[in-house]
Amino acid sequence: MPNFQRFTRIASALPATVPFVGPEAIERNRHLTVKARIGANESGFGPAPSVIEAMRQAATETWKYTDPENFDLRHAIAAHHGIDARHVNVGEGIDGILGQIVRLIIDPGMPVVTSLGGYPTFNYHVTGYGGRLVTVPFKGDHEDMDGLLDAARRNDAPLLYFANPDNPMGSWHSAERVLEFAREVPETTMLILDEAYGETAPAGTLPATDALLDRPNVIRTRTFSKAFGLAGSRIGYVITAEDTAFAFDKIRNHFGLNRIGVAAAIAAMADQAYLAEVVGKISAARDRIAGIARANGLEPLPSATNFVTIDCGSDGARSRAIVDGLMEHGVFIRMPGVAPLNRCIRVSVGTERDMKLFEDALPKVLKRVGSS
Amino acid sequence: MPNFQRFTRIASALPATVPFVGPEAIERNRHLTVKARIGANESGFGPAPSVIEAMRQAATETWKYTDPENFDLRHAIAAHHGIDARHVNVGEGIDGILGQIVRLIIDPGMPVVTSLGGYPTFNYHVTGYGGRLVTVPFKGDHEDMDGLLDAARRNDAPLLYFANPDNPMGSWHSAERVLEFAREVPETTMLILDEAYGETAPAGTLPATDALLDRPNVIRTRTFSKAFGLAGSRIGYVITAEDTAFAFDKIRNHFGLNRIGVAAAIAAMADQAYLAEVVGKISAARDRIAGIARANGLEPLPSATNFVTIDCGSDGARSRAIVDGLMEHGVFIRMPGVAPLNRCIRVSVGTERDMKLFEDALPKVLKRVGSS
Repeated sequence: MPNFQRFTRIASALPATVPFVGPEAIERNRHLTVKARIGANESGFGPAPSVIEAMRQAATETWKYTDPENFDLRHAIAAHHGIDARHVNVGEGIDGILGQIVRLIIDPGMPVVTSLGGYPTFNYHVTGYGGRLVTVPFKGDHEDMDGLLDAARRNDAPLLYFANPDNPMGSWHSAERVLEFAREVPETTMLILDEAYGETAPAGTLPATDALLDRPNVIRTRTFSKAFGLAGSRIGYVITAEDTAFAFDKIRNHFGLNRIGVAAAIAAMADQAYLAEVVGKISAARDRIAGIARANGLEPLPSATNFVTIDCGSDGARSRAIVDGLMEHGVFIRMPGVAPLNRCIRVSVGTERDMKLFEDALPKVLKRVGSS
Repeated sequence: MPNFQRFTRIASALPATVPFVGPEAIERNRHLTVKARIGANESGFGPAPSVIEAMRQAATETWKYTDPENFDLRHAIAAHHGIDARHVNVGEGIDGILGQIVRLIIDPGMPVVTSLGGYPTFNYHVTGYGGRLVTVPFKGDHEDMDGLLDAARRNDAPLLYFANPDNPMGSWHSAERVLEFAREVPETTMLILDEAYGETAPAGTLPATDALLDRPNVIRTRTFSKAFGLAGSRIGYVITAEDTAFAFDKIRNHFGLNRIGVAAAIAAMADQAYLAEVVGKISAARDRIAGIARANGLEPLPSATNFVTIDCGSDGARSRAIVDGLMEHGVFIRMPGVAPLNRCIRVSVGTERDMKLFEDALPKVLKRVGSS
């Protein structure tokens, strides 16, 4: 029998490309072993010991589905931020949530505005629902709020993605400027304000949690995958106006969250001492990465995230050679996908063991790759 | 600012109803405590001790994202079934997978065939993507394969859902009859053959795993939520033709699976001794439920699943009164949603402690509710 011919027009036309190739695939395909896993902006410092204990305790409860209303988790998040739980909804990581947002708003052919070189998984979902990407170049390695706003207006775009701090450059804008921007977004455009890296940003980067709750056209996204060290738990959440938060309930997989992950997220918020400690470690590791870069004649960009983007002073081909060369030493890192951002490589924070492996391998790789 | 007005036409029109109300919500809303959790077809016997240990071990690795290709899990599933891994894809439980299938095939207005009273979460996804449900009544408490086939043909339906064994009645058809049916489904119709309860069915219920791999229009769905006792892990999978398995990769959340759940699923397949043991316990608990039903003058239906559907001989109102009355005793069960199936209640297997609570509460509730 021939292949099934009645997939939707959109599904049939979709490419086989994936947003990111995982380190495991690189290991399999290149027959190499990752020794320093500092490419996916995970936290090598791991979750708190109290969180690991909470996960172990929850293991015996895994025979039960998770509460489909996620009541305890939503209320814990709300209490953590001092807002009402009706402003919170949760999903399978920000990745899952981005897919839901696109599905709620985008019909085939509709324009969606984002930064050129911005988060690939968001673009993946836009394409997956037949949306049309309108991209705005970064400006001085920062997302260009004026350009994004202008593109949203010119295209009458129903959806606009903006990250603060941003990935892959690690740059950020002030809370004040972001608030101004968010309030200028037309009420016919939904703004995704992705704050995945919020916990590692300097004071004054995030608007107050309740500052935009009066804007039904603003969805702020947060995650336990970064500073909290729970990427494998797949728990993200939105902070937004009540009616917008409720929209997710119409389409989400109500039994989609895993029980141990929910227990981990609740425990993680309860351990603020560990969060403070790990944010300190992340900051120190950023300095360490920057120092290694400078010692090798490369320029680290300022970062508000759990990674440092390093300007290698050349082009995408050379950055690719550095990334691939480091992997030969077991050092897994990544790089931005488009010019001019791809003159850079992107190194996630990690333990001193990881940093040492990077420090040892980088000069060898640069020597082999040659100067820019 | 008014509520956001540019959700898609489909999203705007969706109701606030959810497929299932969880026991936690019932506890909160009715100020009651669940003592016997035997309503959601979970496995109160839990996962294997070896699986709990695997989850505890994996807790320290939760800072890492899961391999987006799910290589190890797909290959373990394939080996478990003796098929090639290209025939397997995985997702966030069958619930998540059903949403993906609908998304891949259904454009707004398209007809989708299922049984009247069949799995509500499938219907939820069909409605969520704007599909039009065409329902076929059960026949003698069995899904009506001839009726389903006829409806699919008459409506030229691109999608057809059929469960074997089925939920909510617990009935089943022979593998031989199912194979015949699956091969008669037009190649322009995708058949979902939901085998969530496959592990607990008698020999001769499931077609051989490789029997339908030559049919790109058949997707078989399986889960770790039932016999394996891992409902909270949210891991389901499909067995299908290679091209159909690949279609999921175009739209799924590649970083959607949780790491501990994947470790649990792999460990669960490795512990076949425990699976055999628990299937025995499930069978014994079915007999126990049937015995309790008969002792109270009710008629248990034969079951190939981890629950027993009990004919209470009356109508939906009385079944509802029994379900609500049992909950007052801390016994959480459910019931089918539509007539004539809703003359029944549905009781999941559980430990002897659960069975005893049910046994003690049922006569009291029946006395209060009155005879049919």
